[in-house]
Amino acid sequence: MSDVKKVVLAYSGGLDTSVILKWLQDEYKCEVVTFTADIGQGEELEPAREKAKKFGVKEIFIDDLREEFVRDFVFPMFRANTIYEGEYLLGTSIARPLIAKRLIEIAKMTGADAISHGATGKGNDQVRFELGAYALNPEIKIIAPWREWDLLSREKLLAYAEKNGIPVEMKHKAGGSPYSMDANLLHISYEGRHLEDPAAEPEEDMWRWTVSPEKAPDAPEYIELEYENGDPVALNGKRLSPATMLAELNRLGGKHGIGRLDLVENRYVGMKSRGCYETPGGTIMLRAHRAIESITLDREVAHLKDDLMPRYASLIYNGYWWAPERVALQTLIDHTQSTVNGWVRVKLYKGNVIVVGRDSKTDSLFDPTIATFEDDKGAYNQADAGGFIKLNALRMRIAAKRKHR
Amino acid sequence: MSDVKKVVLAYSGGLDTSVILKWLQDEYKCEVVTFTADIGQGEELEPAREKAKKFGVKEIFIDDLREEFVRDFVFPMFRANTIYEGEYLLGTSIARPLIAKRLIEIAKMTGADAISHGATGKGNDQVRFELGAYALNPEIKIIAPWREWDLLSREKLLAYAEKNGIPVEMKHKAGGSPYSMDANLLHISYEGRHLEDPAAEPEEDMWRWTVSPEKAPDAPEYIELEYENGDPVALNGKRLSPATMLAELNRLGGKHGIGRLDLVENRYVGMKSRGCYETPGGTIMLRAHRAIESITLDREVAHLKDDLMPRYASLIYNGYWWAPERVALQTLIDHTQSTVNGWVRVKLYKGNVIVVGRDSKTDSLFDPTIATFEDDKGAYNQADAGGFIKLNALRMRIAAKRKHR
Amino acid sequence: MSDVKKVVLAYSGGLDTSVILKWLQDEYKCEVVTFTADIGQGEELEPAREKAKKFGVKEIFIDDLREEFVRDFVFPMFRANTIYEGEYLLGTSIARPLIAKRLIEIAKMTGADAISHGATGKGNDQVRFELGAYALNPEIKIIAPWREWDLLSREKLLAYAEKNGIPVEMKHKAGGSPYSMDANLLHISYEGRHLEDPAAEPEEDMWRWTVSPEKAPDAPEYIELEYENGDPVALNGKRLSPATMLAELNRLGGKHGIGRLDLVENRYVGMKSRGCYETPGGTIMLRAHRAIESITLDREVAHLKDDLMPRYASLIYNGYWWAPERVALQTLIDHTQSTVNGWVRVKLYKGNVIVVGRDSKTDSLFDPTIATFEDDKGAYNQADAGGFIKLNALRMRIAAKRKHR
Amino acid sequence: MSDVKKVVLAYSGGLDTSVILKWLQDEYKCEVVTFTADIGQGEELEPAREKAKKFGVKEIFIDDLREEFVRDFVFPMFRANTIYEGEYLLGTSIARPLIAKRLIEIAKMTGADAISHGATGKGNDQVRFELGAYALNPEIKIIAPWREWDLLSREKLLAYAEKNGIPVEMKHKAGGSPYSMDANLLHISYEGRHLEDPAAEPEEDMWRWTVSPEKAPDAPEYIELEYENGDPVALNGKRLSPATMLAELNRLGGKHGIGRLDLVENRYVGMKSRGCYETPGGTIMLRAHRAIESITLDREVAHLKDDLMPRYASLIYNGYWWAPERVALQTLIDHTQSTVNGWVRVKLYKGNVIVVGRDSKTDSLFDPTIATFEDDKGAYNQADAGGFIKLNALRMRIAAKRKHR
Repeated sequence: MSDVKKVVLAYSGGLDTSVILKWLQDEYKCEVVTFTADIGQGEELEPAREKAKKFGVKEIFIDDLREEFVRDFVFPMFRANTIYEGEYLLGTSIARPLIAKRLIEIAKMTGADAISHGATGKGNDQVRFELGAYALNPEIKIIAPWREWDLLSREKLLAYAEKNGIPVEMKHKAGGSPYSMDANLLHISYEGRHLEDPAAEPEEDMWRWTVSPEKAPDAPEYIELEYENGDPVALNGKRLSPATMLAELNRLGGKHGIGRLDLVENRYVGMKSRGCYETPGGTIMLRAHRAIESITLDREVAHLKDDLMPRYASLIYNGYWWAPERVALQTLIDHTQSTVNGWVRVKLYKGNVIVVGRDSKTDSLFDPTIATFEDDKGAYNQADAGGFIKLNALRMRIAAKRKHR
Repeated sequence: MSDVKKVVLAYSGGLDTSVILKWLQDEYKCEVVTFTADIGQGEELEPAREKAKKFGVKEIFIDDLREEFVRDFVFPMFRANTIYEGEYLLGTSIARPLIAKRLIEIAKMTGADAISHGATGKGNDQVRFELGAYALNPEIKIIAPWREWDLLSREKLLAYAEKNGIPVEMKHKAGGSPYSMDANLLHISYEGRHLEDPAAEPEEDMWRWTVSPEKAPDAPEYIELEYENGDPVALNGKRLSPATMLAELNRLGGKHGIGRLDLVENRYVGMKSRGCYETPGGTIMLRAHRAIESITLDREVAHLKDDLMPRYASLIYNGYWWAPERVALQTLIDHTQSTVNGWVRVKLYKGNVIVVGRDSKTDSLFDPTIATFEDDKGAYNQADAGGFIKLNALRMRIAAKRKHR
Repeated sequence: MSDVKKVVLAYSGGLDTSVILKWLQDEYKCEVVTFTADIGQGEELEPAREKAKKFGVKEIFIDDLREEFVRDFVFPMFRANTIYEGEYLLGTSIARPLIAKRLIEIAKMTGADAISHGATGKGNDQVRFELGAYALNPEIKIIAPWREWDLLSREKLLAYAEKNGIPVEMKHKAGGSPYSMDANLLHISYEGRHLEDPAAEPEEDMWRWTVSPEKAPDAPEYIELEYENGDPVALNGKRLSPATMLAELNRLGGKHGIGRLDLVENRYVGMKSRGCYETPGGTIMLRAHRAIESITLDREVAHLKDDLMPRYASLIYNGYWWAPERVALQTLIDHTQSTVNGWVRVKLYKGNVIVVGRDSKTDSLFDPTIATFEDDKGAYNQADAGGFIKLNALRMRIAAKRKHR
Repeated sequence: MSDVKKVVLAYSGGLDTSVILKWLQDEYKCEVVTFTADIGQGEELEPAREKAKKFGVKEIFIDDLREEFVRDFVFPMFRANTIYEGEYLLGTSIARPLIAKRLIEIAKMTGADAISHGATGKGNDQVRFELGAYALNPEIKIIAPWREWDLLSREKLLAYAEKNGIPVEMKHKAGGSPYSMDANLLHISYEGRHLEDPAAEPEEDMWRWTVSPEKAPDAPEYIELEYENGDPVALNGKRLSPATMLAELNRLGGKHGIGRLDLVENRYVGMKSRGCYETPGGTIMLRAHRAIESITLDREVAHLKDDLMPRYASLIYNGYWWAPERVALQTLIDHTQSTVNGWVRVKLYKGNVIVVGRDSKTDSLFDPTIATFEDDKGAYNQADAGGFIKLNALRMRIAAKRKHR
């Protein structure tokens, strides 16, 4: 444990990473650099600076990464209509590669030889942090205290904190673990506590970002999203930066009870786990993106994307954002989005995201003269379908004849 | 056109197929057998018998296929969590293979050498009927009047009907085409009219099976579904036959404004088309089936199914139910469902289907002793994750070293 | 048949397309432009000019497309290690999109409103020509005489030729059809005649490009291929243009009896057909490209390519070169090739292509310090494998415990 | 290290596993059960019994698993035309799951609580053994000495052997490590030594099972293989058991210089490694199986299999034979083989496996009346192709029109 000179810690300012900060100083006798990012989790960051200072940290990084997060991670992912296991919008997964990248950048700037994080040894996040870090700097040392130390129970952790003068909020002391939560501009997640019984319904007061559909407004709200190259660029006619767009969609979705999810997922490390998620803006974006693609994307390109999507989703879920196969898939996905331009109208109402219209002045492949049920004046020759069916059936007819022989 | 002796017509009793009935008699000078199926479309079938008799039809088949439809077509499809193009639940597609099968069976029973149907030359249904028919009887002749005759405009069709004493309902006379609709136990669909403008919102009075979320009850309703081998077998503790199950879920979903869909889809024959769908029971089943799979299915089996699903969906959409590749995929899918046993609790509320609990006494793979955030007493060794990550990162580290060299 | 003013005919100068030329003039009363391409088929092209002149053709195009063919079609295809149905190297399929492109270009230059070709209605080539043409010019008219005329038997065709003063070579007169052959720089193919019995071995004197392995030299020959971005650029140290490279590899492969293939394939139009192929240079390139990729491509990128390859091969086989999904896949494939640089040494001997060495100064991912069976001085920590296995096994252990309960 | 009571060791009788035997007795102070399997590696097994006895082993298992190996592992794998990374026939990979299964069976029979094997911590085999073992008995303890001990260099191992009276053959003493080899009825493999330089050609005297193509007979040999349900059951008219069939094909292939392979592969544990393989019989079987499938398998079923094959191959390569996703895929694969019946004629000559004929009395889908280039008397209507092409082109034409607008 003695060969680390300086370590960059992903530091939230909360209890766990504060304990880690101290533990790193004690166990590794090394200098600690803290890095705290604003990725839209909705917490004040300045207290983290104060706390770090108290531990004698000299190099403190506090970065606003919200625009980069949405522009370079969230939006590219939504271009693929990404969903993991049919339900999960990957809100946690997509933030980790950015943190990993920034940790490595700061390590380079500060001359640190190691990084550290507060993810446990049971979860996916350790994998996402570390695969990213190794891909970006193969020589980096990684310290994952949860896999090393003996503070595995809540009690031991609290005891260590108290012994070392780390402030513990009342909620932690007052019996019972809190939910394990993670938040960023895309979502907030909940795990642990009585969610560990997958048969039990979550308590209403757990949810933080959305009202319940029951408490959402009785009047629906219509919004119009404009897309360019597969990304939403304007809301109700107003151009918004990526982070502002997502924040605004979160506000709208949250208001209308949109984007709650309760599921059991399969972790990369091998066990099933139950999680609850709120992804209000993302839920709107997913539906809207599919809608704009539905009139601007070629059928076979769309199907190719659908066939590849689960693989792409697993790559992100498992932490392979910085792996070459994810980049290769992204190249294909991004290439397909050049025609994904136009607008989508969506109705928001008590948990529902209802697409009610979509069009593209420049790229619509919807051809009303052909699709019509009315007389099409020869745009489509119905007799062609006979030959189409005959040849598509040929192999089956030959096989059936063989069988009946 | 002279070599057909007897033709089995898929006959609804409506205007279009009545015109076809007469046209077949006139053009092909052949005997017509009518076949009318109850697949849960919610219409009286006896009037079809009376109408057929008036045309002098001697062999009239009216079959209740509802149980077979749900048991052998709908349920197998839902075992795969099937969705076409991210949205469509394939309500029309899944009924066609059954009709094709029954047409061929009746042709055999009655000694007919041909079958006929009322699907147009622009749509998917002609393909589904005919691919199925050819696969089951490679020698069958197929008459698709819409691809042959000159009654392509609404006016000509009405004129032909009036000339031949075919009753035309008031709604048809009163200006404007009706929606092109299709219904069965799984869904009802709408196409045509002002839906041909994909930018326009559907009129509220188009929808027939569901109330709008706005008009749905203010109180949520909880239901519990029990699954055996991937199929729902009991609702709120009461065992139901497949068709009864789906009918009951339709009732519940319809009551709570669940299952409306408005989309632009890619037809197999090459154009985009706009359709609206109501699939109340199917929408509930899709969510519930994913939920029960989430605790009973192995991760990699679930991912394999997810990877194959879009292909399986396209096969059904395109009419390949009776093709050997669909059967091969079904063999895999059905094999995976032997452990999909347990129950799911779902909350229905104003368009929302919210999974709130799931469990399986016999097959749950959710292991709380491992998944827990609390002390797991050694069930899982966190240090293992270090090696797991290191080896998964190895190829990326080697590549990064190469690059940095 | 009267609305065509000018048609561009893909004209080989042979019997069939000469009959077509005359037939077009007679039936369509339209002007005919001929287009003859050198894509390495190894035949003189000037006679085609003379023949066309005799028919009164005023616009005659004779183009050397060899470099474009190899550079823009063959090489991109080989970047994907493309094989159709496990065996076929797609020699015919890959030439058609280029012909289609050039036909459309010439139609534009000459103001023609139609194109025509000599492919039959049973084969894949009509599909490849026409899908390409429609994709590049959606308004083009296409005349496929074999699907229209009544000259379907050999006798009728010869009679028509004689009646119209079209010279018929002795071989055609002397009983029996010739093989249906197709040749270009990538391959020569044979179909028909007694190949129509898939149980029968091809006659030795059918093969034209390669000696039999039995007659190949008794001494092996070593060659070294250098790759840049996935394409072979130098042979035995000498830089060669794409077409020259392929021609030279054909010479070497042909000399050593390499690249014969005898198979039954599944045509896009629905039937199985038996074909024999000689692809000497392509067979060498396929093995060599896999070899250079084996040390320069990341594992997961290589596997992604392998997973997508059969789909990409089917697209080319079926004629979708100019379709957007092929272009999307190509974008991914080409992206992966930026590291595929280095050399491969191959031994050629009596039908065998034996890779005996491969390396890359700039991009090798082969790390001898890690791969070694000798002491690796800590480059790889064997203990990591324990955790790797444990976590990969976890889901199976949980399932097994459940089963044993 | 003290909690193991009895361990079943996969024991070859060679140097490495003899050292392990002793080391287990010394380090774990536990009883050792030895298990030696005949899977066709071509070595005497009785010496292993004698050696085990000398170490005081009381329970010695020596099993002839050849028929089970070929019938239940090799043949099922070949039904899928399985190749890893375009080249490797998985000879080592496919034997490991059987060993794992037998180790677990013997552990149960003897009341052992652990198993042990001689695979190193760098390779794939440890993964294959252990994933299999864990899947079959989740409670089993696994001892992998190479990941635990400090005998990592050849010198230390030899020293340990000498110190403990373990006989060391001359070849081991005489400087330099031997190749790391593995053999079973399907193949023999070579790794290590100067193969660790992927640029270097293997020495001719390394190869053990095949003559070089140069030294193979000058006269070709024709053989005929008969298939039932996708498995070869008779050779030249003589029914053979699975193991006898493979042994005989090995003899024939070896005689004709067939089945040598020299490649760089990607290991599951993350590095590239160079391996050479001889798979004479398997190389023949792969070509012959594809040939019989080419006339008996539906096109889309064949393509589905081709699309899934790389994934299936990776599962086997990575050690997931006993995982549920492999079983699910096998269910699909086996289902497709019910029509794979018939015969294939193959010519063997100096390294070449040349398919020269194939047929199936019962299941051929090759229809000469349709495939013929001669007059087909209306079996196929060429005009159908026009409609087929038109509809397949429709989406591209619509897109092209949009672009040209």
